Amino acid sequence: MALFSGPLPLIPPAGRGHGGHGTQPSVVALGGGHGLSSSLSALRLLTQELTAVVTVADDGGSSGRLRRELGVLPPGDLRMALAALCDDTDWGRTWRDVMQHRFTSKDGAEGSLDDHAMGNLLIVTLWELLGDPVAGLQWAGALLGARGTVLPMASVPLTIEGDILSESQGSLRVSTVTGQAKLAVAADVGNVGDVRLLPAGAPACQDALEAVELADWVILGPGSWYTSVLPHLLLPELRDALCRTSARRCLTMNLSNDTKETQGMSAVDHLTVISRYAPDFTVDVVLADPSVVGDRADFERAAARLGGRAVFGTVGVSTGKPVHDPLRLATSYNDMFGEN
Amino acid sequence: MALFSGPLPLIPPAGRGHGGHGTQPSVVALGGGHGLSSSLSALRLLTQELTAVVTVADDGGSSGRLRRELGVLPPGDLRMALAALCDDTDWGRTWRDVMQHRFTSKDGAEGSLDDHAMGNLLIVTLWELLGDPVAGLQWAGALLGARGTVLPMASVPLTIEGDILSESQGSLRVSTVTGQAKLAVAADVGNVGDVRLLPAGAPACQDALEAVELADWVILGPGSWYTSVLPHLLLPELRDALCRTSARRCLTMNLSNDTKETQGMSAVDHLTVISRYAPDFTVDVVLADPSVVGDRADFERAAARLGGRAVFGTVGVSTGKPVHDPLRLATSYNDMFGEN
Repeated sequence: MALFSGPLPLIPPAGRGHGGHGTQPSVVALGGGHGLSSSLSALRLLTQELTAVVTVADDGGSSGRLRRELGVLPPGDLRMALAALCDDTDWGRTWRDVMQHRFTSKDGAEGSLDDHAMGNLLIVTLWELLGDPVAGLQWAGALLGARGTVLPMASVPLTIEGDILSESQGSLRVSTVTGQAKLAVAADVGNVGDVRLLPAGAPACQDALEAVELADWVILGPGSWYTSVLPHLLLPELRDALCRTSARRCLTMNLSNDTKETQGMSAVDHLTVISRYAPDFTVDVVLADPSVVGDRADFERAAARLGGRAVFGTVGVSTGKPVHDPLRLATSYNDMFGEN
Repeated sequence: MALFSGPLPLIPPAGRGHGGHGTQPSVVALGGGHGLSSSLSALRLLTQELTAVVTVADDGGSSGRLRRELGVLPPGDLRMALAALCDDTDWGRTWRDVMQHRFTSKDGAEGSLDDHAMGNLLIVTLWELLGDPVAGLQWAGALLGARGTVLPMASVPLTIEGDILSESQGSLRVSTVTGQAKLAVAADVGNVGDVRLLPAGAPACQDALEAVELADWVILGPGSWYTSVLPHLLLPELRDALCRTSARRCLTMNLSNDTKETQGMSAVDHLTVISRYAPDFTVDVVLADPSVVGDRADFERAAARLGGRAVFGTVGVSTGKPVHDPLRLATSYNDMFGEN
């Protein structure tokens, strides 16, 4: 995924820093997890006026344990976003690798650190010391020489919940699934419906709202549709800001529609989900890889119902795996910024 | 203990750096734990040509757990030495506080991170990524803008072991105590004797040997006498380097003789321990606070038996607690550097 990699230097550099950014577009990318990392890996090539707004509803793995044990925001998606923005120097890449490192115990040892990502612990430490999630992320970004700003969508941990409609012995059954980790695989059981964020009416991060308001472009997706993309439209203050901003809006589709949380859903179904949960949210562009849209005319009509035009770009990696290629995605975004 | 403290700034600074160091003396400070921190907090005021050589036999607390679970050097004493050398800027102090931070779980939570120092995890991560203890410490030092270099005395974890002579129902009994954590409190039971490092003949850290060879001054102590000071003379290669170097040698006494590992021992007894374990090791100066030496003439004779002269300086904090005051200790070292 990363454009820049290679063996780490043993000797740290004397300094670091990067130049100015002239008249680049101001871009806010919203999402979570690997999808947002892809987005940022592309956008960092186009602008340094870049802000990531990241979901904070994760309750699985290292993030979930830290959230439960220490009562903090789940740091994992924030860490991944920071890592994607690291400065392209020995300094930036080394601290990125430190942030992304996971501990693995020796055979037979106790292993209480197992699976914790170092960067999660570092971010949590900064939060505990500074008492301010945004300031902590700024310090972590400064360590990486990050080419942009990473913000949580809310300053309190969120919980995502949904109803699952399943058929059992001929009758329909509705059950509630609570927590991102469970919801992300719930479509195995039935259709995901009535997805909501708790606590209801949680305040959005003020810096994120400002960034959305002042942006030239806001880009939502790619990412897990129900657990990384949709949450930004479920938090009332953030949804309102996204609807109200004078920025141009782009919705970027995934490279695979049929995931564990979107089983059987087409690309058009993905767009329908967006308008069902946020009827007032419109877009200027829906960016999609031609391989996933099915019938182009159908998809163009669905994009038009969201207020925008469909833009088709081959944005996947050349192996065909459903992973965005940073350079191809950057090319599509760059064309889009130039045209609109 | 720290000279520099205060609330942390929320906004990271744009850059950092510090000036050159002219013709300052090249100093190697050997020890471990709080004693070495005191030593470094003083010496950093006098020179930037400063190298800390640190014990790696700890097997208690966070360090002990990491050593057992991950098979690495115990990082705790190295972390404390780095923290004492952090750059005196918002940048340096913030990352020092991050390194020194310990996790505490919410009431009732699982708490597998409890008591781990963040800096221990950071140092271990650098070691796992870089595969080189010295390079990992250089990166951690670069993060802190450390005013000096921190090196382990050996590149493999060491175990300290001693025999305890105790009296039970009128007859003498010898038992072996293995591990620094247990040995540090063993004098509760009886006299500590035949202290040794395992594995026998473990190689010293080459960079540490070079630093000792090239120094203008080597300073051993203060610190826990058996577990932080003596180990440097128990590792054959390091003892030989300390005996052979053309540097001037200073032994700095503790502010309390009667600790859990040195019960009932006088200041003169402390010097006797050194010559018993390292008969070829001589010093130029024995620096002691007048409050702990007992009869001055006795102490001067004991210093002379080690080849040196006793220098008396009031180096404790003004409260009378047995803690070295960095400014007073620096004053004594500065006078010593000027006179010899």
